[in-house]
Amino acid sequence: MSALPGVKALVFDVFGTVVDWRTGIARDAKTVLAKHGRGDVDPHAFADAWRRRYQPAMEEVRSGRRPFTRLDVLHRENLDALLADHSITADEADRQWLNRAWHRLDPWPDTIPGLIRLKSRRFIAPLSNGNILLLANMAKRAGIPWDAILGAEPARAYKPQPEAYLRTAEILGLAPSEVALVAAHNGDLAAARKAGLATAFVLRPTEHGPEQSTDTRAEQEWDTIAGSFEELADKLGC
Amino acid sequence: MSALPGVKALVFDVFGTVVDWRTGIARDAKTVLAKHGRGDVDPHAFADAWRRRYQPAMEEVRSGRRPFTRLDVLHRENLDALLADHSITADEADRQWLNRAWHRLDPWPDTIPGLIRLKSRRFIAPLSNGNILLLANMAKRAGIPWDAILGAEPARAYKPQPEAYLRTAEILGLAPSEVALVAAHNGDLAAARKAGLATAFVLRPTEHGPEQSTDTRAEQEWDTIAGSFEELADKLGC
Repeated sequence: MSALPGVKALVFDVFGTVVDWRTGIARDAKTVLAKHGRGDVDPHAFADAWRRRYQPAMEEVRSGRRPFTRLDVLHRENLDALLADHSITADEADRQWLNRAWHRLDPWPDTIPGLIRLKSRRFIAPLSNGNILLLANMAKRAGIPWDAILGAEPARAYKPQPEAYLRTAEILGLAPSEVALVAAHNGDLAAARKAGLATAFVLRPTEHGPEQSTDTRAEQEWDTIAGSFEELADKLGC
Repeated sequence: MSALPGVKALVFDVFGTVVDWRTGIARDAKTVLAKHGRGDVDPHAFADAWRRRYQPAMEEVRSGRRPFTRLDVLHRENLDALLADHSITADEADRQWLNRAWHRLDPWPDTIPGLIRLKSRRFIAPLSNGNILLLANMAKRAGIPWDAILGAEPARAYKPQPEAYLRTAEILGLAPSEVALVAAHNGDLAAARKAGLATAFVLRPTEHGPEQSTDTRAEQEWDTIAGSFEELADKLGC
């Protein structure tokens, strides 16, 4: 029997699971750092530092201290702070361009071949904390064949809050158990399971670079586990 | 010079402009009417009657008398009332199937060839009162190549309220003048223009059947006017 019986829609974590954010951000950061005479700053460290500000920024929204604010805005605030930390005085156009690096991330090599197969038998959509425009621009540039762009913005809640998962199932007209989250992150899957979704772990051992120490294995008995989107398609009989 | 200079995204009315709702609803209504021994009811008249309940149902939401409710729910309430009018006692499965007829509408013949060309040079998305699932299922079935699924549900406002147009531009990260509404309905275009969007009229002379008497011509000087999506692509240099 194929994996995930009864699951009609697959929703995907994006940063790390669908695309390689660290390589993409480092690539574009390198351009801006060089332009401003800061070739001494390691672009991968810059990418990591930008990403470290991600959870605290969303936590302001999750806690209710701040109304729902889309990720492009949070990314920009975090970029401005990071540039200030490095005493880099990039102009507005450079900041806008670098902030859109999150729209220009490349998929892992197995992402698109796997999604094309999965789409033939299931409804597929992102369930990302990225905003609609970010995810749609990424898909348009990279040819990611989503059926719809879902996630924090239409749900108006950031993962791992239960509303992010439950409202996504509601938008899809499905019971939570008819939706599976596909993610490379055990924490995201744990929150999805708590909300009643099915779970699929896909290992991404170099999301954080060659010495990654987190999410190097499935930490619970997820409903299915795969090493790539193509293996996931195999397991689902797609 | 090509039409709509400065416009980066095209957003589309869907029912009537992208798809032929009347033919599609009549097709599936015919099946249910026959099954329940009501071959005497004209399926096109049934489609028209269902559609006549559309604006009053949304008006409950627009007026604030009712919280935002997605179109699948409004369609279902209207269907139940219409079946009661005809004393048809269809079971739950038949009602669910017929309500999803709105997810199974076919595009006009020029829709997909035109959209493929337009997508190559612009961001394209629906700006419909249909909910996300309805529009996404329609796109998946018919191969409509949207870049994202926008409209009343992510904007949480029904056209022609200004918020439906303005929040869509905001989601796209664009000024209203950088977004054009493409529609076969003068009223929709008038509301979009009032909100600051650019406007493109596409004539759909048989949306309401062979004796259509409304929207048979452009009633204002819209920014561009075309007889099909392919002609629109020509005018935009796509």
